[in-house]
Amino acid sequence: MAEVVKLFRTWTSPFALRVVWALKLKGIEHETIFEDLSNKSPLLLQYNPVHKKVPVLVHNGKPISESLVILEYIDETWKQNPLLPEDPYDRATARFWATFGDDKVFPLVWRAFLTQGKEQEDAVAAAIANLKFVEEELKGKKFFGGEAIGLVDLAFGWMVNMISLLEQLTSLKLIDAEKYPMLVLWMENFSEVPVINESWPPPDKLIAAFLAIRGR
Amino acid sequence: MAEVVKLFRTWTSPFALRVVWALKLKGIEHETIFEDLSNKSPLLLQYNPVHKKVPVLVHNGKPISESLVILEYIDETWKQNPLLPEDPYDRATARFWATFGDDKVFPLVWRAFLTQGKEQEDAVAAAIANLKFVEEELKGKKFFGGEAIGLVDLAFGWMVNMISLLEQLTSLKLIDAEKYPMLVLWMENFSEVPVINESWPPPDKLIAAFLAIRGR
Repeated sequence: MAEVVKLFRTWTSPFALRVVWALKLKGIEHETIFEDLSNKSPLLLQYNPVHKKVPVLVHNGKPISESLVILEYIDETWKQNPLLPEDPYDRATARFWATFGDDKVFPLVWRAFLTQGKEQEDAVAAAIANLKFVEEELKGKKFFGGEAIGLVDLAFGWMVNMISLLEQLTSLKLIDAEKYPMLVLWMENFSEVPVINESWPPPDKLIAAFLAIRGR
Repeated sequence: MAEVVKLFRTWTSPFALRVVWALKLKGIEHETIFEDLSNKSPLLLQYNPVHKKVPVLVHNGKPISESLVILEYIDETWKQNPLLPEDPYDRATARFWATFGDDKVFPLVWRAFLTQGKEQEDAVAAAIANLKFVEEELKGKKFFGGEAIGLVDLAFGWMVNMISLLEQLTSLKLIDAEKYPMLVLWMENFSEVPVINESWPPPDKLIAAFLAIRGR
């Protein structure tokens, strides 16, 4: 059977971007279905009835939701250019950091983006404090897993444009290059990977979209 | 090298219990270190500097934190009695539900336990609504993965005693057997597995401990 791979996403979703990157790293051709989240398609609701969110990957008719779950599925289904290392301990470490980013960094940065004043300052302070652990983890490494880009890099990839966007829009400084040299270096290394580089949404369109979200 | 497996936990932690069950299902001997969370040991803080929480599994000196990450590590390290199925799609499904439980059920039940009045009623209503998806998922199956107990069962295992405890302590009804027959059946099936059954904390001690937490 020919492989049929479809990705339901929005062009703004940082979680969907992880899946785009993973499929490109693996060299998997796929069809993209762009969803309007204010008017979700019947197919999206059918494929992800629990969360009703993008991204959803549909592989030969079978849907998979939740971006970290999708990344592991992609890695187990197409073995070329592995996203996770082989060693069980290194795999556990990768899963730990990917989850840490989603639980302890993304929600705080997002809250900083949507709030103002004291609430925003608190969210920024908490995000920066948690990023200190990430800074430590990156010491002596080009990417989270070493020399090659992997699952944790994709999971933290949203930071690269979201943080600079947040800094532009709020005039708050999140990542101080002197205090977080490894994180800044990682962002540069990550951005230079062609597969990553060629998939960013256009910055001006993204700013307009995020400002619209913030306005609501 | 002889395997040295240590588990840092508390006897009340439902997340730690998953790891106890997994090690027992795999037949892995281990040393248990009971932590006092009001006075955490230097070793716990050294092994889990990020979250400073139990459970932490230490295998030949290397620490792993976060219970779902630990379960996957155990499954990849000791292959007997698999916790996850082999097929990538089935593995993705298992990861989806395990995460769903931790994100969309546990926090609501815990909130219901710690609150009162309207806030408690809302948490209970939201938990019950989310459990409807779990009820659907269990249709026609003995365990989440089919005939054998697996990772998702261990991940939802906390429900079996926490929900009955919550019902006893608050006189609220969470699981209506007529509306949630599959969930009730699953709880029975799960409780009957000897490895599960023999590892529950003593109910009266647990009630006293939870009441003390609730009092604070």
